[in-house]
Amino acid sequence: MKIAVMGCGTVGSGVVDIIDNKSDLMIRSANENIEVKYILDIRDFSDSPLASRIVKDIDVILNDDEIETVVETMGGVEPAFTFCKKCLEKGKNVVTSNKALVAAKAEELFDAARNNNAAFMFEAAVCGGIPVIRTLFSALSANNILSFAGILNGTTNFILTKMINEKMSFDTALKIAQDKGYAEKDPTADVEGLDAGRKTCILASIAYGHHVYPEEIHTEGIKAITLEDAAYAASKGYKIKLLGKADKRNDGKIGAIVCPFFVNETSMISGVNGVYNAISVKGDSVGDVLLYGQGAGKEATASAVVGDVMECARLKKNEKHYYWDKHEDGIIEDYMLYETALYIRGYAKNAKNSIINIREAFGGVSVLSREDAPENEIAFITSKATEKELRETLSELKDFAPASIIRIL
Amino acid sequence: MKIAVMGCGTVGSGVVDIIDNKSDLMIRSANENIEVKYILDIRDFSDSPLASRIVKDIDVILNDDEIETVVETMGGVEPAFTFCKKCLEKGKNVVTSNKALVAAKAEELFDAARNNNAAFMFEAAVCGGIPVIRTLFSALSANNILSFAGILNGTTNFILTKMINEKMSFDTALKIAQDKGYAEKDPTADVEGLDAGRKTCILASIAYGHHVYPEEIHTEGIKAITLEDAAYAASKGYKIKLLGKADKRNDGKIGAIVCPFFVNETSMISGVNGVYNAISVKGDSVGDVLLYGQGAGKEATASAVVGDVMECARLKKNEKHYYWDKHEDGIIEDYMLYETALYIRGYAKNAKNSIINIREAFGGVSVLSREDAPENEIAFITSKATEKELRETLSELKDFAPASIIRIL
Repeated sequence: MKIAVMGCGTVGSGVVDIIDNKSDLMIRSANENIEVKYILDIRDFSDSPLASRIVKDIDVILNDDEIETVVETMGGVEPAFTFCKKCLEKGKNVVTSNKALVAAKAEELFDAARNNNAAFMFEAAVCGGIPVIRTLFSALSANNILSFAGILNGTTNFILTKMINEKMSFDTALKIAQDKGYAEKDPTADVEGLDAGRKTCILASIAYGHHVYPEEIHTEGIKAITLEDAAYAASKGYKIKLLGKADKRNDGKIGAIVCPFFVNETSMISGVNGVYNAISVKGDSVGDVLLYGQGAGKEATASAVVGDVMECARLKKNEKHYYWDKHEDGIIEDYMLYETALYIRGYAKNAKNSIINIREAFGGVSVLSREDAPENEIAFITSKATEKELRETLSELKDFAPASIIRIL
Repeated sequence: MKIAVMGCGTVGSGVVDIIDNKSDLMIRSANENIEVKYILDIRDFSDSPLASRIVKDIDVILNDDEIETVVETMGGVEPAFTFCKKCLEKGKNVVTSNKALVAAKAEELFDAARNNNAAFMFEAAVCGGIPVIRTLFSALSANNILSFAGILNGTTNFILTKMINEKMSFDTALKIAQDKGYAEKDPTADVEGLDAGRKTCILASIAYGHHVYPEEIHTEGIKAITLEDAAYAASKGYKIKLLGKADKRNDGKIGAIVCPFFVNETSMISGVNGVYNAISVKGDSVGDVLLYGQGAGKEATASAVVGDVMECARLKKNEKHYYWDKHEDGIIEDYMLYETALYIRGYAKNAKNSIINIREAFGGVSVLSREDAPENEIAFITSKATEKELRETLSELKDFAPASIIRIL
């Protein structure tokens, strides 16, 4: 099978590398060799060993009937979307690692794929080398997915791990992440939870069958997390993790949220440290399944892309493709209606009195302690109720100023 | 798609249950309904709601062209093998949960499948609901698998967890496992490592491309593990786990072994407790991936079978099938040549002198201690060497009688 790779950056060059150098694996798994015929990139590759395959014009790829599958590793929504759609309309399979594209445009790309009997695959778009897309679409397809929760962003998990294990401040940990190349110069998409949000949308779309958009999901990052919070969490056997989480609600809607959680130290997911990712899925037949691995990185992500390319070679033209249905308005439940317990840290002039009032208002709370806490600091965990109820109760407390609120998984 | 289920025991009846009751999932994922037309079972089902679909004669299934896919959940090698082969020869896909069948007969069944353009699928045969077969065949197909290690048997992991966490003896823990239905009345296949051995063979066959037979792999169970060993392990931050393990050796051979290991408590796999299973895979591109979940149980296993059935419906007739190549003599390296460190516990008349001799013989060891150890007990961990060298050194020690030897992961 001959393919083209659009975008020869980190992941794209990794894809070319694997396909050029592992023809034994291609033949063993796909029963034929795979060859990168074109590499589309606007940059200058004239001194590169790849030069002879570089093209600047998408039409070269579109008009070559030998090209059965096109890899998109450009990133961003445009021109990736336009290029992918054109490829699908020509009946070429598209394999992408681009989560922004999938989160924003999968509905239209699924349509183009089905109408033209082509495959649209994106295992690499969520958590790099972890096979979560295949698992949800195929291995667990006999299950109603009751819920999932995942550490979907390695950068923030690296920062939180440093804060928890080495008592490093957020700013220092972020600086190290940037120095190591785990975080961008502008870390907004990671630390504000936007990246985890896109992945949560993609997983929720597969699990619940309708396209979910990032704007619909309440998203919080980790910038507000302090070492004080980490210490209080540890005092009760919790670790703080940024999770993307979704479940099917009793009213048929989808519950979905991206935010930091207190996670019990006895759970598998609490043991996921550094840049590693993990997704825990609960199916109605299979019970709990957890997938763990490197969620990013050139080689891990490229290997997931090539896995999809090999699947395209193996399956050829008449499989029924995976997809999800169109978006439905109002399918996401307001997160204020989810039941949760909350960790709340704050300050009071008279802590003793304030704790009495807090206990009474919430009908009992679990008060936390940490070393060297100032006298006016109070931290506690409520019992479970809707977040709306808990926040209303909190807002009525006159002598307590909350500084940090984190949900309990 | 119309299917038949051969063997209506625990898993088979679970398969019928899911397919009868989840037609919404079938249609969403496979784009068509799936219907169980026949159930082959020699037992009396005349009072069962399934009675109208029960048949006693395999020929009814073989001769019905409507039946595209046949599920085999009878267990054992015969008559399962004969029936599956006949189905494949009729061009019907076969989906099985039967690891004994796959470990013993996959070579012949792959041949029959390919020659008749049918699929032979067995996700449920290794670790029930954990999608390890798909992951190795497909998601990680762009990787050379450097190694894998797995907790592949829930019964023994349950027993070891009880021994480690509750200081329960092997016999007491086994009794509880039997009472809970996790262990058979005759627990040999589990506690002697034979079940884990079959699964290790199947995984090694996928990872390294040639059929590996259980008889080729050195296999030890957990009957010799004592609470003393668990205490010594804990003293150095290890847990004892029964692992099936394989790697690609420098000489091109496969290293494979099934036995208890000391596993570092900081590793993800050491956190796998009770009847849960997990497999950790290292690929040359993807790095470490870990899959975790219920390795057995009616519903989890049945859901994996149905996932394969839905894949058969989705893919229809022209995909290229997954398989591995024929067995090759001498492809498994003698386990005595693997490099490992060993934990050794034993007894000496004069422990002080013996430790001096042990240190000298092994060129330095790490001596372990535990509470209430008798004075004549010695336990230590050697540095790494081939097992052959270490055992030769051990056999030359005149004043020390070894009682327990466990490898370090």
